[in-house]
Amino acid sequence: MTLKVSDIGEKELVKYIIANSKDITPDDTAITDFDSTKLISTCDMLIQSRHFPENMSYYDIGFKAVTVNVSDLAAMGADPLGFLLSIAIPKDMGLDSFKEIIKGVLKACEFYEIPLLGGDTNEASEIIISGTALGLCDKPMMKDTYNMGDLIAVTGDIGLAALGFELNVLDNIYVKKALKPEARLKEGIVLKDFATSATDITDGLASELYEIKKDGFGFMIYEEMLEVSDEYKQIANNLNLDYLDLLLHVGEDFELLFTISNENLKKLPIDCKVIGEVTDSDVIELTLENGFVEFIKNRGYEHYVSE
Amino acid sequence: MTLKVSDIGEKELVKYIIANSKDITPDDTAITDFDSTKLISTCDMLIQSRHFPENMSYYDIGFKAVTVNVSDLAAMGADPLGFLLSIAIPKDMGLDSFKEIIKGVLKACEFYEIPLLGGDTNEASEIIISGTALGLCDKPMMKDTYNMGDLIAVTGDIGLAALGFELNVLDNIYVKKALKPEARLKEGIVLKDFATSATDITDGLASELYEIKKDGFGFMIYEEMLEVSDEYKQIANNLNLDYLDLLLHVGEDFELLFTISNENLKKLPIDCKVIGEVTDSDVIELTLENGFVEFIKNRGYEHYVSE
Repeated sequence: MTLKVSDIGEKELVKYIIANSKDITPDDTAITDFDSTKLISTCDMLIQSRHFPENMSYYDIGFKAVTVNVSDLAAMGADPLGFLLSIAIPKDMGLDSFKEIIKGVLKACEFYEIPLLGGDTNEASEIIISGTALGLCDKPMMKDTYNMGDLIAVTGDIGLAALGFELNVLDNIYVKKALKPEARLKEGIVLKDFATSATDITDGLASELYEIKKDGFGFMIYEEMLEVSDEYKQIANNLNLDYLDLLLHVGEDFELLFTISNENLKKLPIDCKVIGEVTDSDVIELTLENGFVEFIKNRGYEHYVSE
Repeated sequence: MTLKVSDIGEKELVKYIIANSKDITPDDTAITDFDSTKLISTCDMLIQSRHFPENMSYYDIGFKAVTVNVSDLAAMGADPLGFLLSIAIPKDMGLDSFKEIIKGVLKACEFYEIPLLGGDTNEASEIIISGTALGLCDKPMMKDTYNMGDLIAVTGDIGLAALGFELNVLDNIYVKKALKPEARLKEGIVLKDFATSATDITDGLASELYEIKKDGFGFMIYEEMLEVSDEYKQIANNLNLDYLDLLLHVGEDFELLFTISNENLKKLPIDCKVIGEVTDSDVIELTLENGFVEFIKNRGYEHYVSE
């Protein structure tokens, strides 16, 4: 039997590339020594049918293409240096729609104070945007440099986007987070002097925890600390969705997930939400509000677009 | 009537992006000041149905994805710093085919001595490869910094790939150039100390000449100096193709087109072929072998893949 790429999944394909290249750092971005500092570079491709909900505007599509790349800089604590844009669009797309995408890209570059350095266009059957974000950082945060006993924290609420993807109404915090996410760039730059490790939550909390897990270390997350609102639970329930599933397995929040010592947490000058701690259990667990403890499953991230 | 993107064409779309961004250098790559040197960055997307002939192997597809990006570094005279890969593939692609693409990418990175810094995979209905090449250069060559009287030269034969795309046999120099092109990276690094301007020929000689033309300056190209072989003319003729059309309007050779003073040409330590000169005619002309002079038309580049 001949194996298809779908038989092994995207994460395994990336692992194959990493295993065969001697130069790749398996972290959120590439890190290249450069004089007294480090060049941070990252490249992410977004494809219309997979990454953009149908109700997302062209402007928001452009903005998000920058956000997903800048979010990787944020995860390293890097100062933005520049952004490169490669965009492919269907030839029958309206010129105004194209201009809206570019407007979104430019507004995002302005918002994150990252100059748009170059642009390239192409033709494809759907919208494909590949961005490259470049940054500088003297001391980039790695994914797995946490210590036993560190606290686990996030820069904001998680799960909002996950719920937003399920809703058709426009004017609420969930849909706003789903359609107009913002990268935590400034927070990342502050965190690099306080956190022991960091990554951004694109593929869901569970997936990111498995991504950063190292042998002999475990994580205990506390449902209570996730501070899920009654409204959130109610809406999920009305949609016949499990609210913990949404919180743990969807992602797209672009919040930072980081670890920090108790002492540094007290000094941290930005808001954050502690959600758990690094343990020696070697497993990833969740203490439910009712006191029961269960394993968090390593479910691959699921796109909101139905297959 | 609502304008479609196809009504204005890719070059105009790029011009729209450039016009709306205050930070883009309209050259082969982006240039960012960095300490005593400059960071060179470029990003190019290749799409299976547009950029890869049907008889191109998966390995060659991977190799070419690196070549097109490295060729932009070559055009600036930059030393390679790193390569980032974003690849989207159909989910029913064989795992072996995917591995062949990656093998081609890695081999090309080794060949150009550019480390593969990061990789990202995605799913799409056809193969899409977006690469980012990073380099360093203290004195990047610009496209349009030539002087009146400079000679116009290329680093090798042009038009070979153009003919290769039309042939089905495999074992000849034309098809080899079409399917296995190589970027002139080493030549670019040498040229930066001798040439007055440079660019790489991806879209055809005519298109590149129009791209670098500035007001008040013209170019005279001499057919005789292009040294078109009898074999080339014969094969084109057998295919009912105009050999000058192939030479001028197809491209994909990845040779460098550069300008150089007469004095520097004598000192230049690499092979090249002088094909013309910078004039004050303000037009782009070709002196035919029979002595007649005609204008070279600004025909947009044409992909070899039939629409």
